[in-house]
Amino acid sequence: MLLLRTLASPINPADINQIQGVYPSKPPFTSLLGTSVPSAVAGNEACFEVQSIGSSIKSVAKGDWVIMRSTGFGTWRTHALAEEKDILRVEKGGLTEIQAATVGVNPTTAWRMLVDFENLEGGRDWFIQNGANSGVGRAAIQLGREWGLKSINIIRDRKTPEETESMKKELLDLGATKVITESELQSRSTVSEIKEWTSGKNLKLGLNCVGGPVTLALVKTLSPGGHLVTYGAMSKQPLSLPTGLLIFKDLKFSGFWVSRWSDANSAEKEKTVESILQMTREGRFKDIPVQEMRWEWATEGERLVEAVGGGLEGFRSGKGVLVFGDT
Amino acid sequence: MLLLRTLASPINPADINQIQGVYPSKPPFTSLLGTSVPSAVAGNEACFEVQSIGSSIKSVAKGDWVIMRSTGFGTWRTHALAEEKDILRVEKGGLTEIQAATVGVNPTTAWRMLVDFENLEGGRDWFIQNGANSGVGRAAIQLGREWGLKSINIIRDRKTPEETESMKKELLDLGATKVITESELQSRSTVSEIKEWTSGKNLKLGLNCVGGPVTLALVKTLSPGGHLVTYGAMSKQPLSLPTGLLIFKDLKFSGFWVSRWSDANSAEKEKTVESILQMTREGRFKDIPVQEMRWEWATEGERLVEAVGGGLEGFRSGKGVLVFGDT
Repeated sequence: MLLLRTLASPINPADINQIQGVYPSKPPFTSLLGTSVPSAVAGNEACFEVQSIGSSIKSVAKGDWVIMRSTGFGTWRTHALAEEKDILRVEKGGLTEIQAATVGVNPTTAWRMLVDFENLEGGRDWFIQNGANSGVGRAAIQLGREWGLKSINIIRDRKTPEETESMKKELLDLGATKVITESELQSRSTVSEIKEWTSGKNLKLGLNCVGGPVTLALVKTLSPGGHLVTYGAMSKQPLSLPTGLLIFKDLKFSGFWVSRWSDANSAEKEKTVESILQMTREGRFKDIPVQEMRWEWATEGERLVEAVGGGLEGFRSGKGVLVFGDT
Repeated sequence: MLLLRTLASPINPADINQIQGVYPSKPPFTSLLGTSVPSAVAGNEACFEVQSIGSSIKSVAKGDWVIMRSTGFGTWRTHALAEEKDILRVEKGGLTEIQAATVGVNPTTAWRMLVDFENLEGGRDWFIQNGANSGVGRAAIQLGREWGLKSINIIRDRKTPEETESMKKELLDLGATKVITESELQSRSTVSEIKEWTSGKNLKLGLNCVGGPVTLALVKTLSPGGHLVTYGAMSKQPLSLPTGLLIFKDLKFSGFWVSRWSDANSAEKEKTVESILQMTREGRFKDIPVQEMRWEWATEGERLVEAVGGGLEGFRSGKGVLVFGDT
């Protein structure tokens, strides 16, 4: 066994869905936490520091950083006991705790979706995605830039044209090829521009975290034989598919869930995480904007509940991350 | 070139959609047919007899039977000129004209959908399909029976319980493992029966020619990781997919269009057609019930229009087939 001290743990929308009971996987409930009814610790990713280890453990040493191989461990806590098989050692040089804590879900999701569904060729192929300013979206933009994949990035229309332009610029600076708003996507001129950019045949992959009618407009831009991979449903609406798109346009529809993928592909996850962290060290992969919620012994419960509540709507200035002080 | 005489040509719903202009592929329009404006011949499959051949042609002889390699040739006619590359010779011994004329679309569709999307194992795996009494449905039932694949077959509720029972019996006699009505599929007890039959994990493939809300009930019976292949949309309604089925249940959605497949897989089509016809000769594959519409020189135009019109609603006593008399 290892005793771990938590350094940082993000607040992902899926964590909150899990607390709400609308998520298909649950952490184990136990009486060991000292609550009057069995309870569980929330949170699905974190960066931990190893505080002490059993004498038989050789793969990590005191002071090393580790992350969890799988989701569902319960990471919103100051300390944890873990088994060697549950953890993945992270070479901490050149990284912040937050970078290590946030690599396993969003950037890993983006990486696998770009690689595992269609065989995209750098310098030729494009992908299109909605929710492009999300953690996954920003990761996909940067991986695309590194691999020569051109991207069409859809964002929601902001309150003012200035805010829209500022968000577009932010994503273009990250390496986005094109950034368009949902309302631009609805216009015919944009649809024919997309056809020109992609020669009508090089847009084989779409990434979807929104669902509902606005996603149909994205689907219709895909080239014949293209593939839509769904990893989220921020609109909470189903995806409605005219069957002609399946039969005559030969589009394919799949889903990606990083928890299932990680459980089934442990070695591959290790490699993916290491590759992303190496890009991060070299300055080729920027972590997403975060809003730190510092945990101290004196932090009041209400503040924490508020921070977690904000995670579902999306923190205004970035993803929420619990950062643990002197524990 | 070859001069062909048409022996039989089915009336498929897609033929009529093509005439209506709502089908994505069109036969070539030409002035050679002697009409005042360019026109085209409808019909997409047929069995032809070779009447005469150019001296360079070795692959077929006078009197041989042939079918078209691809759809879109225009088969509702008494005679046709074709090139050697367009045709596929059919060994006629042991076959009727109608069996040869109807092999290329429906049975081929069923064969490829059972083989090309999921790796099903005889003796263990199941598939589920709607429109089970259609040409494709009946072919899938029989191929499943031959390959040891168990099938759950959904039919629409008939007007009377007797008619429903009679249709169930007909499909069970063909080799269906289970036959249920759409309303039975909506009941909880049937859904849990399906789980029992398939051990909750051996139902990896669904075949869909209906679409709309009734198809969602079918989709929900699929085992995790399952695949729905859509080849028709008789309800004319889109398929609405709760995204959780994509993300958490890992279901996949594709389409199959036999025209596209045939154009891209000519050698494989030849093998598939030969295999089905061999099963037919051996009495292991029954053609679907047909209603013959005999064409004679004296047949009135109105009768033909009526016969074609009936093809969209489905002939009451089977699929419509034009059978050409003494031409």
